[in-house]
Amino acid sequence: MEPTVGDLSDPLINHTEGQLFLHEAFKIIVEEVLCKGTDVKEKVCEWKEPEELALLLDLELREKGEQKEKLLQRVRDVAKYSVKTSHPRFFNQQFAGVDYHSLAGRFLSEALNTNLFTYEVAPVFVLMEAEVLRGLRELVGWTEGDGLFCPGGSTSNMYALNLARYRLYPEVKSQGLWSLPRLTIFTSPESHYSVKKGAAFMGFGMDNVIFVKGAVPHFVSCTSGTTVQGAFDPLDRIADVCDKHKLWLHVDAAWGGSVLFSKKHRHLMKGVNRANSVAWNPHKMLVAGLQCSVLLLKDTTNLLKKCHGANASYLFQQDKFYDVNLDIGDKSVQCSRKVDCLKLWLMWKAVGSTGLEQRVDKAFFHTRYLVEQMKKRDGFQLLREVAPVIKERMMKQGTMMVGYQPLGDRVNFFRITILSPLISQKDLDFFLDEIERLGNDV
Amino acid sequence: MEPTVGDLSDPLINHTEGQLFLHEAFKIIVEEVLCKGTDVKEKVCEWKEPEELALLLDLELREKGEQKEKLLQRVRDVAKYSVKTSHPRFFNQQFAGVDYHSLAGRFLSEALNTNLFTYEVAPVFVLMEAEVLRGLRELVGWTEGDGLFCPGGSTSNMYALNLARYRLYPEVKSQGLWSLPRLTIFTSPESHYSVKKGAAFMGFGMDNVIFVKGAVPHFVSCTSGTTVQGAFDPLDRIADVCDKHKLWLHVDAAWGGSVLFSKKHRHLMKGVNRANSVAWNPHKMLVAGLQCSVLLLKDTTNLLKKCHGANASYLFQQDKFYDVNLDIGDKSVQCSRKVDCLKLWLMWKAVGSTGLEQRVDKAFFHTRYLVEQMKKRDGFQLLREVAPVIKERMMKQGTMMVGYQPLGDRVNFFRITILSPLISQKDLDFFLDEIERLGNDV
Repeated sequence: MEPTVGDLSDPLINHTEGQLFLHEAFKIIVEEVLCKGTDVKEKVCEWKEPEELALLLDLELREKGEQKEKLLQRVRDVAKYSVKTSHPRFFNQQFAGVDYHSLAGRFLSEALNTNLFTYEVAPVFVLMEAEVLRGLRELVGWTEGDGLFCPGGSTSNMYALNLARYRLYPEVKSQGLWSLPRLTIFTSPESHYSVKKGAAFMGFGMDNVIFVKGAVPHFVSCTSGTTVQGAFDPLDRIADVCDKHKLWLHVDAAWGGSVLFSKKHRHLMKGVNRANSVAWNPHKMLVAGLQCSVLLLKDTTNLLKKCHGANASYLFQQDKFYDVNLDIGDKSVQCSRKVDCLKLWLMWKAVGSTGLEQRVDKAFFHTRYLVEQMKKRDGFQLLREVAPVIKERMMKQGTMMVGYQPLGDRVNFFRITILSPLISQKDLDFFLDEIERLGNDV
Repeated sequence: MEPTVGDLSDPLINHTEGQLFLHEAFKIIVEEVLCKGTDVKEKVCEWKEPEELALLLDLELREKGEQKEKLLQRVRDVAKYSVKTSHPRFFNQQFAGVDYHSLAGRFLSEALNTNLFTYEVAPVFVLMEAEVLRGLRELVGWTEGDGLFCPGGSTSNMYALNLARYRLYPEVKSQGLWSLPRLTIFTSPESHYSVKKGAAFMGFGMDNVIFVKGAVPHFVSCTSGTTVQGAFDPLDRIADVCDKHKLWLHVDAAWGGSVLFSKKHRHLMKGVNRANSVAWNPHKMLVAGLQCSVLLLKDTTNLLKKCHGANASYLFQQDKFYDVNLDIGDKSVQCSRKVDCLKLWLMWKAVGSTGLEQRVDKAFFHTRYLVEQMKKRDGFQLLREVAPVIKERMMKQGTMMVGYQPLGDRVNFFRITILSPLISQKDLDFFLDEIERLGNDV
C-alpha cells in the first residue's frame, strides 16, 4: 500500500511541540553548562571509566523513539558527564572560556542552517565573512587580499601548501605531482603536526617536510605561537630569506595570531605583513568558540578560485541575475561549508577591537603572574617526572584540567594554557596549590 | 603601567549579563527563524542587492563595543535577511527543514565547546561517535569496521582516496607521490565535483580522474544519489569488477545513503556492503542539520590511524592512565574537530530508526507525487529555457527557492530537491502553480 502523508507521522515535525522541547533543552543547557559548568565550586569533569560511562549514557540506538522526559534527561546527562571547558580551572587545551555574544551567534548560525557557498543561500554571511576577513587582514597589515574560514587550523595550513605549489606549478592541478620535481617544505621541529599531516595528505610525503638535497624548496611554514612553548619565529628574518629565494612564506598563527589585536604584544609578529598566507584561529585566544579558523591571503589574483575551482554547474551557474563573484564556494575544497563568521562578528561588534585587545593583554598578564608565582615556590622542578600520576588524580577528583607532555630530552612537564578572560589570579594560585597538593606524596 | 585584572573590564565576562543576553537572543531566534521562518505565509527570502544589504547590516568592525539593544537588533537583522532554509518552500539545496531534537543537540554541542580528539576532553562524544558510527555501519551491512565524522562529504571522499592509495603504497605517507606510479581514479561524469577537487588537492591531479593508459587504477568512486539527477550506480556490478582487479571501492552516498534506513528503498544500494568505504551525509535527507557527515570504513586494521597518524606528543601521550585507543584524534587530518555526532544521536533516540525510515519514505513519496502532477500539466517542457528569468522573479518576490542548471546537451532546467518531512503535498502543488505563474509571460 502506498503511504499517504497522514501515515507518515513523525513526532517532532510538530513545530509547537518541537519548540517546547527546544525551550526546555535550552534551560538545561544554561543551568548545567553555563551556570554549574562555570562555577568554580563545581568540578571541571566528572570522571568515569569508559565502560561505566557507556552504561550510564545508554548510548544504543533503537527502532523506537523515546518520550520527551527521557530525552531531556539525556540532554542533562550529556552535559553532566562532559568536560566543562568553560570552567575557570580548565587549562588543558588552547580553547577555554565562554563568550555569550559568540555563543548567541553560534545558536543563530545553527538555527539558520545554511551553507557558505553562494550568495543566494547565504547573502548575509557572504558579505559578513568578507568583512571579518578584511578586518583581520587589516591587522596583518594588508589593505587587499583574500581568505576563507576553514574547519580548523590544519585545513588552513593545507590550503596554504596547495596554493604555494599551484602558484609555482599550475599544472599540478590537472596533472598531479608526478609532473613536478620533488618539492620540499621548510618548518621548525616545534611547528604544529598539521604541517606533516598535511604534507602526507596532499601527496608531498612527510619526509619532504625537511630539507632534501636536489629537491625544490617552495614553502616555508613559520609558527607564531608554537603549540607547546608558545614561541614566535622571527618573521622578518625568515621573510628576508624567502624574498631572496622567492619562497612562499606561510605563518601558522593559529595560536598566536590574536596578539595582532594588542598594541603591546603585536611586535611578536613583526614582519607578518611580508607573508603570503596566515592561518589564525580566533576560537583559541579570542574565545570565539569552536570552530573559528581563518586563512588570510595577500594574493589579489584570485588564486584560491583558480587553484580550487571546479565550476560545478548546479551551484555556480554563470547566468545568474546577480554578480557571480559573490558565489565564493568554489574557493574552498569543501562543498558544504559551515558559517563560522557570525560568532566572531557579533562578538567583535559587542566588545570592539579594544575588548579583544584586552583579552589578549589579560592572557599575557596572567601568564606572567603565574611564572612569577611559580618561581617563588620550591619543588616545581621535581614535579615533571610525576606528571602522569598527578594528572590521573586531578581528573578523578575533577578539580582542574591541564595537559602534560615531554619535549626533546626533557621528561613530562605540565603545559598550562592560559587564555580565558574568565579566569582570575585566584585560579592561578589554585593551580599551583593544587599541583602541590596532588603531588605531595610522590 | 602593568594592567591589573581590575583594569581589564570586558562587558561580557559577566555571567549574569551574558546569560540574559543569550536568553533574549534565543527568544529572537525562536521567533524569527523557527516561527516566522517556517511559516508558509512568510517569504523564503528577503532579497536585497549586495550593496543595499551591506548598508542595512552595517557590517563594519570598530574599536568600541556596542550596547545590548543594538546587538539584539543585529541578531534580528541577521535572521531577517538570511534565507529561511527550514521554510516549506525552500527546495534549493540538498538540505532543508528543521528537526528540533537535532537543533537542541546542536545548541548543546556549541555550549559544551569541546573537540573530538581525546577521551579526556570529550569522554561522552568519543563513546557516542563510536556508537553512531556502529549504528550506521550496521545499516551498510558491516558488523565491524571504523569511521569518522568529517566536515562535509568532500572531506569524507578525500579521506577515502587517501586510505586507498596508502593501502596500496604505504610509502606514500613518507615519500609522497613521486615514489609511486601514476595512479588513476575511476568515477562517472555524474559524480560530485568533490572527487576532482580532492584529486587536485591531494596531488593526484584532476586529469587522473579518468582512465589513463599505462597508469595504475587504484580507486573507484561510485555514487549513490547523484547531485543533479539522484541516480544510483549499480554497486553490485561495480563491486564485481573491483573484486577482480583488487580496486578500492568507495561509495559517495552523501545524498543517497539515507535510503539504507528504508526497507522499501534500500535496494537502490544493494551491494554497498562490498564497498571499502562509504561517505554519507545525514545532514541531507535525514534533516540532521549542517554539518553532519560520516565516512564509514570496512577496514579493521586501524588504517585510519596508520595513514593519518602523526603521534603529537602534547595530545596523544602514551603514558596516560586510560586506554589511549580512546584518543581518536590521530585518525583525522584535522586537529580541532567539531562534535557532529550528538545532534544525530539525539534525533535518532527521539524518533528511532523507524522515524528516520519514515522521513526517507516520505521524501520518495513526495517526489513521486510531484512527478505525477507535473505530467498532468502542459507546458513544463518549455520552461527549461527560461529558468534564469523565473529564478530571478522567484528570489525577488521571495515566494520559494529552487535551483536550476543545464546538463549535458540539455538547457537549463529546475532541480527541485525534496527531502524535508515538514513539507506537504500542498507545497508541491504550490511549486507547480508558482513556476507557471512566474513564467506565464515568457
